[in-house]
Amino acid sequence: MDKLIECVPNFSEGRRPEVVAEIVEVMRGQGVTVLDYHADPAHNRSVVTMAGAPEKVLEAAFRACQVAAELIDMERHRGEHPRIGATDVIPLVPLEGATLEDCVRWARELGRRIGEELGIPVYLYGAAATRPERVRLADVRRGEYEGLKEAIFLPERRPDFGPARLHPRAGATAVGARPFLIAFNVNLDSTDLGVARAIARAVRESSGGLPAVQALGLRLQDGRVQVSMNLLDFRRTSLVTLYSRVEEEARARGVEVAESELVGLAPAEALLEVARHFLRAPGLRADQLLEVRWWHAAREG
Amino acid sequence: MDKLIECVPNFSEGRRPEVVAEIVEVMRGQGVTVLDYHADPAHNRSVVTMAGAPEKVLEAAFRACQVAAELIDMERHRGEHPRIGATDVIPLVPLEGATLEDCVRWARELGRRIGEELGIPVYLYGAAATRPERVRLADVRRGEYEGLKEAIFLPERRPDFGPARLHPRAGATAVGARPFLIAFNVNLDSTDLGVARAIARAVRESSGGLPAVQALGLRLQDGRVQVSMNLLDFRRTSLVTLYSRVEEEARARGVEVAESELVGLAPAEALLEVARHFLRAPGLRADQLLEVRWWHAAREG
Repeated sequence: MDKLIECVPNFSEGRRPEVVAEIVEVMRGQGVTVLDYHADPAHNRSVVTMAGAPEKVLEAAFRACQVAAELIDMERHRGEHPRIGATDVIPLVPLEGATLEDCVRWARELGRRIGEELGIPVYLYGAAATRPERVRLADVRRGEYEGLKEAIFLPERRPDFGPARLHPRAGATAVGARPFLIAFNVNLDSTDLGVARAIARAVRESSGGLPAVQALGLRLQDGRVQVSMNLLDFRRTSLVTLYSRVEEEARARGVEVAESELVGLAPAEALLEVARHFLRAPGLRADQLLEVRWWHAAREG
Repeated sequence: MDKLIECVPNFSEGRRPEVVAEIVEVMRGQGVTVLDYHADPAHNRSVVTMAGAPEKVLEAAFRACQVAAELIDMERHRGEHPRIGATDVIPLVPLEGATLEDCVRWARELGRRIGEELGIPVYLYGAAATRPERVRLADVRRGEYEGLKEAIFLPERRPDFGPARLHPRAGATAVGARPFLIAFNVNLDSTDLGVARAIARAVRESSGGLPAVQALGLRLQDGRVQVSMNLLDFRRTSLVTLYSRVEEEARARGVEVAESELVGLAPAEALLEVARHFLRAPGLRADQLLEVRWWHAAREG
């Protein structure tokens, strides 16, 4: 089977729709499938989700980075979300046939090309990081564009590729590899923020909870509270396990789950696991879904 | 959105792979997507699952019927499965944007064309039936090819289109419309056929059970028993409701479910309903599945 990857580049532009559209068109022009894109004016940031064969995705990401450097001037950029450059971050995600290790290799190829051909300093992060202190994106972004102007000269902030100074308009770019991330929130039938926070602590990996889970408790606009989660690897912790654990922790505190929500996309396999579990149907396969079979058939020509 | 339908023609040939391949190729040549095909030597029969825009699917079905009439001689056909012709049955199934009523209209168009242009008598069945006694395929097939040679001259067996006598090689064809059918079996941790039959009676519509459910109890080769079901409309009875009811009926008889299995394909929506129920995620949509989104994006160009 052909290899397929996903790429979710983030650009520091969310207020000029024509600029976002131009960046998206450049990517489409490389033969990738643009699955989704979303511009956020408050964050002044946009996120594009594309997928396809690795060579096309890499070329699309490179071209988008080149165009973003022409159209976005970080000297004039303001927005709430932390960022270091016009193309702020480019994560590569294995979908089919490809492994995380493949994506690490491709992230390094892409990073080298952006550094050398576009003169934009590149930091490798996530599974592609070359140093432990660069695995987390928040650490790579420390000081943001403005702070990095000086900090980039420090040995510990030296980029992995490209010049050891910020690009005058485009800043710097983080390029990395990670497994597919599922954003999954559980809303509680409660207004007690303490309960949501306690559940988040109980389920997240960093405080001894479930593997590959990030979680925090927060308050929704309607006053209820939510356990907001990122599932970093649904093969290590399934949605069934995660949801069941949140429900159990809530009940132990006398609180019921109101409803849950999947934010954005998830591979069919992640949801199918739920059906497999509750219908006791261990043999259920993603390609038994009509649309998935069709998608496979169409790809195979 | 463009209309999409599925079509699952059955051909009376399961022993000559080159004949099945030729029929499949004729369909592919019309620009439809062939999702699956399966030749069964014991039944001497093959089933092709194709999908696409209605006009392409209708053309593909017509051409396949034409080729089958050239390549298959019913005078020489032997096989265990009841059948009346070389192209035995052509069901049209609404997928997206199309309704069952649309498929009824298209089934009649297709039936008329097969009757008039190919000289093959056509019986409309299912939702496209013109008489109540032709809704069930088993009734249309009564007497099979051999018996229908004489019976076709009876007023009550007069075909809806085409000549009122069998085609000398191709016999007759049933053309119809039906909702998507999901084949779903539940295996019991029991060897008591009576229990499987009692559960089947409790869940099937014909004996007062769940709407749109057909069920029978049977014994598997390993000695255990199974409740074998067709879910004729998963929007009327969901997989969750069906599975839960079988489990409940089994427990009431002191028997546990061993496992269940989906046979063949199901629309993503049918499985997603399971996740929606158990994760309490009412907002979950099929196009949040990465592969489904991709398939949509690819279709929209």
